[in-house]
Amino acid sequence: MAKQKKQPRPKAITPKGFRDYFGHEVTERAEMLATIAGVYHRYGFDALESSAVETVEALGKFLPDVDRPNEGVFAWQEDDADWLALRYDLTAPLARVYAQYRNDLPTPYRRYAMGPVWRNEKPGPGRFRQFYQCDADTVGAPSVAADSEICAMLSDTLEAVGIARGDYVVRVNNRKVLNGVLEAMGVTEEGQQAAVLRTIDKFDKVGESGVRELLGKGRLDASGAYIDGVGLADAQAEPVIAFLTSKGANAADTLTNLRAAIGDSAIGGEGVAELEQIANLLAAQGYGPDRIEIDPSVVRGLGYYTGPVFEAELTFEILDEKGRKRQFGSVAGGGRYDDLVKRFTGQAVPATGVSIGVDRLLAALREKGRIRSAERGPVVVTVMDRDQMATYQTMVAELRNAGIRAEVYLGNPKNFGNQLKYADKRQSPIAVIQGSDEADRGVVQIKDLILGAQIAENATLEEWKERPSQFEVPRGELVAKVQEILEGQA
Amino acid sequence: MAKQKKQPRPKAITPKGFRDYFGHEVTERAEMLATIAGVYHRYGFDALESSAVETVEALGKFLPDVDRPNEGVFAWQEDDADWLALRYDLTAPLARVYAQYRNDLPTPYRRYAMGPVWRNEKPGPGRFRQFYQCDADTVGAPSVAADSEICAMLSDTLEAVGIARGDYVVRVNNRKVLNGVLEAMGVTEEGQQAAVLRTIDKFDKVGESGVRELLGKGRLDASGAYIDGVGLADAQAEPVIAFLTSKGANAADTLTNLRAAIGDSAIGGEGVAELEQIANLLAAQGYGPDRIEIDPSVVRGLGYYTGPVFEAELTFEILDEKGRKRQFGSVAGGGRYDDLVKRFTGQAVPATGVSIGVDRLLAALREKGRIRSAERGPVVVTVMDRDQMATYQTMVAELRNAGIRAEVYLGNPKNFGNQLKYADKRQSPIAVIQGSDEADRGVVQIKDLILGAQIAENATLEEWKERPSQFEVPRGELVAKVQEILEGQA
Repeated sequence: MAKQKKQPRPKAITPKGFRDYFGHEVTERAEMLATIAGVYHRYGFDALESSAVETVEALGKFLPDVDRPNEGVFAWQEDDADWLALRYDLTAPLARVYAQYRNDLPTPYRRYAMGPVWRNEKPGPGRFRQFYQCDADTVGAPSVAADSEICAMLSDTLEAVGIARGDYVVRVNNRKVLNGVLEAMGVTEEGQQAAVLRTIDKFDKVGESGVRELLGKGRLDASGAYIDGVGLADAQAEPVIAFLTSKGANAADTLTNLRAAIGDSAIGGEGVAELEQIANLLAAQGYGPDRIEIDPSVVRGLGYYTGPVFEAELTFEILDEKGRKRQFGSVAGGGRYDDLVKRFTGQAVPATGVSIGVDRLLAALREKGRIRSAERGPVVVTVMDRDQMATYQTMVAELRNAGIRAEVYLGNPKNFGNQLKYADKRQSPIAVIQGSDEADRGVVQIKDLILGAQIAENATLEEWKERPSQFEVPRGELVAKVQEILEGQA
Repeated sequence: MAKQKKQPRPKAITPKGFRDYFGHEVTERAEMLATIAGVYHRYGFDALESSAVETVEALGKFLPDVDRPNEGVFAWQEDDADWLALRYDLTAPLARVYAQYRNDLPTPYRRYAMGPVWRNEKPGPGRFRQFYQCDADTVGAPSVAADSEICAMLSDTLEAVGIARGDYVVRVNNRKVLNGVLEAMGVTEEGQQAAVLRTIDKFDKVGESGVRELLGKGRLDASGAYIDGVGLADAQAEPVIAFLTSKGANAADTLTNLRAAIGDSAIGGEGVAELEQIANLLAAQGYGPDRIEIDPSVVRGLGYYTGPVFEAELTFEILDEKGRKRQFGSVAGGGRYDDLVKRFTGQAVPATGVSIGVDRLLAALREKGRIRSAERGPVVVTVMDRDQMATYQTMVAELRNAGIRAEVYLGNPKNFGNQLKYADKRQSPIAVIQGSDEADRGVVQIKDLILGAQIAENATLEEWKERPSQFEVPRGELVAKVQEILEGQA
């Protein structure tokens, strides 16, 4: 006789590459995003929340660095044969929304958006398949005044969330200058242009001599592998090197160096003029190079954007996994891109914007001690006498009405030790106790759990006697005493 | 020769059943949710944000009223053969999270969660496939003190977001009382019990006589169709009718009526005792029947929950689509359910909670005028002289530093009329104008657009002369004058 098969229980696990956020992880992010939304709103940007789901057709093949359409997204087919997918960023939905509502939206349309996006990629350490993005974009404004506004807003935003001036810099570069450099080099063939772009992207890692080798014959990398070069003549590399190393002591010097690098390229000249306008606009508003600077060594994103490119870097040092000091690095980036809406309407619409890496910025704020990495739990009113539940609930109601986070212990009250263990697990600052004896005398016991823990750890008997961590007060003074202790703990 | 096929442009449309939210629609919801989170937090509830994606296995067949597993969800298969799906509510993920982390979480675990959920259902008017939920649940607390706490918190929450006392009532019922009623009726067979439950659900629509008919021989409904009855004897219906109509002048009367309805059923007695405890706990804390009341006519959800059941109803009247007056109705519901975690662990864990219908509550607040349904736009600094962009950007920076929402017009400045049309579209309260003449004289023109619109609509020539809507002030007084006008508009 065959054994009857028992239905196995489902596994209680988060899907691979996804994670859950608890307590302060949720509230800290919400607070940071609310602060950012406040700055964006003050700059005249309007909120937009598009649906998480888009048609695959509308999303298109827009994800950078992915060749196959739909690769990298979570997609499924509807019964009626439409393919739907979860958005992979907030820019593709903006393009769809702007194309869909362009007759009703103001032009220029300034919008901000914040929310989760999904990537169907192999997860790795610290790399999840759902994460938050926080974007601001201006659609329909061709002038670089829109770009300089984004840079100023980014600077204001970083300071508003708690990154001190001096701990960050917003760097600005321009894709058109690079195009001018390619012209000055005489590199006109698309494949070769792409190869030069890829090489430039490696400047951070391989430095000037490395870039020279890679533009020329090739290079033996650290692992011993030989990397083929682009095959340019030595002299052809000069404009690129001049471009990458053009940063001078101030914006004027940098612009002079850039002009030299691009030779007589028209597009290059346009790019340098744009950078100059941005520098002037920002200088006039008091955004000095301590906050925003022209920096042609910013190469990330140059392949993707069509005009000005910006990147916010945090300049303070942290220790990496191996204990080595390194700069915290990039927390936001953006730039100007013009083909966003064209896919839908056939008309090019200028757009510029920035995206903040929410998790990285949160990590930076934790690193700088700007947010406490643990939250204070509620005041716990313990249950000494099961029949007095109404009394205890009245106590917490009084505390809450005074704005104090408070709760009654709702587990099995039999074992008092469990109640204190619970308070400990909740990181409660205070426990309130009233048994029948205290009730008869009209008093409550108030236990300072933070001080109690400190004393238990460090104090001598003398100190312990001098600094009691438990107080008996008349019932009517419950709220006042709790408030006093909380203020002392803050 | 075949014609070359041109790739058609993608359609810029939101997928069927999904929608986009703009500006104040986003911020008003965010503000309401932040207020609710504040109340929940003060009650000791911790935030939880689980991922939007769950394994189909973990979600299980939990969606009420759906028979096929996975029906009603958006699901897709991973390359490695796992099926994933978007969550359809916030309770199923809570069950998974609690089962997964139960050794690390405090017991009881109070958590709140807010965010979008997805339903793969046929969309209809006002019925979307992505919408927000906002839940609070207490897991691991068997006592009805946990249920009464949820009711008190729901009452506090409604008042905190702007529903006045008297405009809502939280009604409480208990599934165990209904079980007692079934016992008193002598209905023990499961199929028949389910049929009685379905009939009770129709009480709102068909009234007492309708319920009698449906429990007995059947009923001719309004459309002329004959609905088969459950086939009970007339006398058997009495306990149900007694139950449904047991609401008395006060809680004590209601409880007396309920005791009569359940006869000597043990489970029914337990249910009535629970309701009595809840009533006593709430009365002791000052939550009178003007806020929370025992009401056995609350039948929604009785089939789903296992103990106390609650529903928040807004009692003020609105006009429906057909212009008829009706009560606004339900905005939140919840109750106790005990099998939540058992699927995963085999162990029953008591749980109770509430879910707020975010969109309905927002609609109610708009109805009551508690939130403005349109947002004030930014102050717009117009561009009279393209070369003075830095000057204009400095003006908006000054305004923003004073906390005023402000922006420079970034479209093509050639046509000044377009700039004012833009300000109008943005619902801007004020436009600031400085041409070269004003610049030379060190002044700015400040246009009160709200007053201007009012005057244009209503004023006589005399009034128009007396109440100028445009002011010339020294450049140094820009911020002060704008502030003064904004305060006058508020």
